[in-house]
Amino acid sequence: MAKRNIGKSFHIYPMPVVIAGTVADGRRNFMTVAWVTKLNSDPPMIGLCVARKQHTARGIQQTGEFSVNIPSVDQATLVDYCGLVSGRDEDKAAHVEVFEGALKSAPMVRQCPLTMECRLSQTVELPGSFLFIADVVNVYASESILTDDAVDAVKLRPFVLTMPGASYRALGEEVGRAWEIGKSLLQK
Amino acid sequence: MAKRNIGKSFHIYPMPVVIAGTVADGRRNFMTVAWVTKLNSDPPMIGLCVARKQHTARGIQQTGEFSVNIPSVDQATLVDYCGLVSGRDEDKAAHVEVFEGALKSAPMVRQCPLTMECRLSQTVELPGSFLFIADVVNVYASESILTDDAVDAVKLRPFVLTMPGASYRALGEEVGRAWEIGKSLLQK
Repeated sequence: MAKRNIGKSFHIYPMPVVIAGTVADGRRNFMTVAWVTKLNSDPPMIGLCVARKQHTARGIQQTGEFSVNIPSVDQATLVDYCGLVSGRDEDKAAHVEVFEGALKSAPMVRQCPLTMECRLSQTVELPGSFLFIADVVNVYASESILTDDAVDAVKLRPFVLTMPGASYRALGEEVGRAWEIGKSLLQK
Repeated sequence: MAKRNIGKSFHIYPMPVVIAGTVADGRRNFMTVAWVTKLNSDPPMIGLCVARKQHTARGIQQTGEFSVNIPSVDQATLVDYCGLVSGRDEDKAAHVEVFEGALKSAPMVRQCPLTMECRLSQTVELPGSFLFIADVVNVYASESILTDDAVDAVKLRPFVLTMPGASYRALGEEVGRAWEIGKSLLQK
């Protein structure tokens, strides 16, 4: 496949989409975030990257806590709403059924089938954003997405964001089993 | 939705899957990575998180460079293979059509329709992993995935990894348009 240099702007394909829950200026706030990844297994750590100007960044800096809420396709409208307006301008919690776990400032979204509360470990300052690196303290799941006490991605029905084009897409058919289909290329 | 505390282990749903290209101990190496995210828009920056013991981590520390290669479903077998065996034990480049851009130690995978070369900016040391934060220097795309000179996710046909269960899945139907479907919840 011949390639063309298309500059240095990029997106990851595809991006997961989560709702981050915080308390900013004393009020609960919820924001859509697509720059998120697991960073460590033991202890479990997560990275959440947010533009510097975001109200959510302010909240995490104030409290050192936040939640990450993984939606199913049923929450797509709520997810999109949480990305449309700033918590400075509108009380987004009005549309969220909030519940709390062990942390005081990591409000979680009951509508999302998988949620976690996170305690800030370190902040990486980048030119236009903050990467918040946190320990995951507790994970909560709806019974409806569990199979044998483990999260079942088929039951969860997560979705992704693709850019440009700004489209949310569900998951499709299985392409293959991981740690399996590549065995055909192993030497000897 | 009632929730149950299921501990603190977690995965992000779903995870993107990329191949990281490096030069480690003087030899080109390619490894599958699912802990990856964009971190900054201007300048474009990426975060790639790799277990400390990985040969890929060694390569990035040696050279300060790496590539990120985004596969389509057509490369699923190659992607899985690159995650099955260490570059210490097998020359994975034997299965890769390598090309180079501006950097000396960021070999790219020609089979992947979207690739980028990255220059290390900082390393965050975590308990079991390294998060490599890098500037994206150049992005390369196959003509076949471009529409009006922009990457078209439908043409790219990326896939994701879901865990546990270890399944690669293609993208499915559109759930909705981002920055659009949530407008129904806006106040006033």
